Amino acid sequence: MKHSYVSHLFCPKCDTRYTIEDKHQLCTCGSPLLVAYDMESLAGALNPAMLRDREPSLWRYRELLPVLHPEHVVTLGEGLTPLLPMPNIGADMQIPGLLMKDEGLLPTGSFKARGAAVGISKAKELGVTELAMPTNGNAGAAWALYAARAKMKSTVIMPIDAPLITRNECAISGSNLYLVNGLISDAGRIVADLVQSYGLYDASTLKEPYRIEGKKTMGLEIAEQLGWKLPDVILYPTGGGVGLIGIYKALKELQTLGWVQGKLPRLVAVQAEGCAPIVKAWDNQEKESQFWTASKTVAFGINVPKALGDFLVLEAVYATGGCAVSISDEELLQEQQRVAELEGAFVCPEGAATFAAARKLKQTGWIGENECVIALNTGAGIKYPDTVNVQVPVLQPGEWITR
Amino acid sequence: MKHSYVSHLFCPKCDTRYTIEDKHQLCTCGSPLLVAYDMESLAGALNPAMLRDREPSLWRYRELLPVLHPEHVVTLGEGLTPLLPMPNIGADMQIPGLLMKDEGLLPTGSFKARGAAVGISKAKELGVTELAMPTNGNAGAAWALYAARAKMKSTVIMPIDAPLITRNECAISGSNLYLVNGLISDAGRIVADLVQSYGLYDASTLKEPYRIEGKKTMGLEIAEQLGWKLPDVILYPTGGGVGLIGIYKALKELQTLGWVQGKLPRLVAVQAEGCAPIVKAWDNQEKESQFWTASKTVAFGINVPKALGDFLVLEAVYATGGCAVSISDEELLQEQQRVAELEGAFVCPEGAATFAAARKLKQTGWIGENECVIALNTGAGIKYPDTVNVQVPVLQPGEWITR
Repeated sequence: MKHSYVSHLFCPKCDTRYTIEDKHQLCTCGSPLLVAYDMESLAGALNPAMLRDREPSLWRYRELLPVLHPEHVVTLGEGLTPLLPMPNIGADMQIPGLLMKDEGLLPTGSFKARGAAVGISKAKELGVTELAMPTNGNAGAAWALYAARAKMKSTVIMPIDAPLITRNECAISGSNLYLVNGLISDAGRIVADLVQSYGLYDASTLKEPYRIEGKKTMGLEIAEQLGWKLPDVILYPTGGGVGLIGIYKALKELQTLGWVQGKLPRLVAVQAEGCAPIVKAWDNQEKESQFWTASKTVAFGINVPKALGDFLVLEAVYATGGCAVSISDEELLQEQQRVAELEGAFVCPEGAATFAAARKLKQTGWIGENECVIALNTGAGIKYPDTVNVQVPVLQPGEWITR
Repeated sequence: MKHSYVSHLFCPKCDTRYTIEDKHQLCTCGSPLLVAYDMESLAGALNPAMLRDREPSLWRYRELLPVLHPEHVVTLGEGLTPLLPMPNIGADMQIPGLLMKDEGLLPTGSFKARGAAVGISKAKELGVTELAMPTNGNAGAAWALYAARAKMKSTVIMPIDAPLITRNECAISGSNLYLVNGLISDAGRIVADLVQSYGLYDASTLKEPYRIEGKKTMGLEIAEQLGWKLPDVILYPTGGGVGLIGIYKALKELQTLGWVQGKLPRLVAVQAEGCAPIVKAWDNQEKESQFWTASKTVAFGINVPKALGDFLVLEAVYATGGCAVSISDEELLQEQQRVAELEGAFVCPEGAATFAAARKLKQTGWIGENECVIALNTGAGIKYPDTVNVQVPVLQPGEWITR
């Protein structure tokens, strides 16, 4: 049996095809490229039961991943994160079927590890020795660390306001780290120049086609963890939107294989009120978003003023009958605390936004009674210490507590 | 088939037995209690093949855990963390068979989640509604969050120097958090008073018998992940030592079941030079340790001047032909950086100490050629931002990088 059934790359805008054996970034038309598989052969060769006793990592889906040879796999054990019932907060927002996919339990503490694991593995297979990328923090940390494991050099540029801990992760990996006194879009321009001037591999979001494949494993896992049944709704905190694009791609691939039946879940793009270009586009039923000026939110990972894959995000939302919702910083911080108090889960602010969105959509009736709803927590709350307000009494040794 | 084959509690010092249905803390003789199982019935009822397609969490070993009824299980999806080959740093220290068990990939970012998951589940089964505990940070964070999930009240007391992020975790869970201007031993005295005055459940290390059972799943997982073969050496960063006691207990249980054969791995207690009571006791071949005055180390989790279970730790080390080693803060911080640069793994300082210990023991010849050696990383490096020195150039938007 083949390790991977990957066949080629294609452009979702102009349909141009590219080979899988060579290094490609964007399509000549400027669009991101997507990865295609030989689904017909795969459908005959693999079935769900064969996955059952495979290793508990995203590499259990190797036939649907783009790495041709197992020796190129670069792994830190990522994947098969818990899909947890959330009965207490579910009751609080009257969604008894609320589940959380907890991506905090990944190397580097965020879902970015999925894209980095597959992206770096494929880059290694393609002979890449040095890469550059802009980041809002977590992606850069993940790519820098996986690059180190692959013995690859990296240059990472992040906004000065990105979570402090992600600086440490990049620095300790030996990455060339720079801060920029601006946004991820400013970092992106510097990377574009660096890539052009020095011929580096551009690992910017969607400028290499493989991180989507890593992210799509969230969709594969959700389906497998639900016994190949699909939920009604999946809420995803949307910055660059790669995870949502990936989940949609995964679910369609599972449909093609015949492993899932019926309607796809409604995909919900959750954004912050301070940076909501996808929500604005969805409100106007447009196919692409506009650059969001002066964007600002505590949910730093979704502070992306204009995503390269916005049209793919919107397509996934429209095609599944989903929607796009924005949440204020105040709402999401309140929800972060509720999730911790009621469920013992310390989610990241971006993840908290999906819970706030679920609450809102239940109130408006968009989420119905007894629907199965998945909130995607994209990272560990421990990466964002500043979102928690702590006032603690200090005792001296020998002092007692009375109450 | 029964959910658990737990039978009773017993005292490893005076052999007194206690029932499993009632709340017990220490033995009347002052020793911690251990959990016993009906191994004869279990050996007839369960075999390794039956585990293969169970859920990827520590609850796959439910028969060897103390929770009688599945409805009392409190879980955030903990367990089955990766056992990763470390070929690059392994080559660097001439231990080609070096592996890392990465406990950073657990809820709350540390191995304390294992003890908390099982401890809180059993406390729930016993009807506990409120607990108190001292902590060096990570255990308190884990117990506070799992207590929240179980709808249990908690009071946590930690040294003022404990990792800052663990304050946030306790605070956001709704725990009653106090800092003490001293060490964990000072916090312990305050908790002891609180427990006595108000009748709270004492969740201090080894004062409840069940966290060992959670921690022992590290040993069960290592054996299963190696295909029921045992490694030659396991290095464990030792503060309270519960993990080492647990791993030893697990391996002996697997021997009793006949699931593993041959010699047990040599267990190595790794401590910091600034707090090495177990190392000192081992050097003098003593059965118990002495209180280590003025203890100090950056590896805060192993700053435990006198562990209640020291005699059990030393017994495990002696019985397996292991040893005890101390590492300077400088050595462990250097090793932390090497592990990140060579393997892309950002380990915690305590975990880094085990790598430094492996290097040292290979140099002295204590670790032989081609031995299979496991370094246990007890938590995610992201919980300890201060251990990384970051100097980063700052760019302005529109500025370019030249090189």
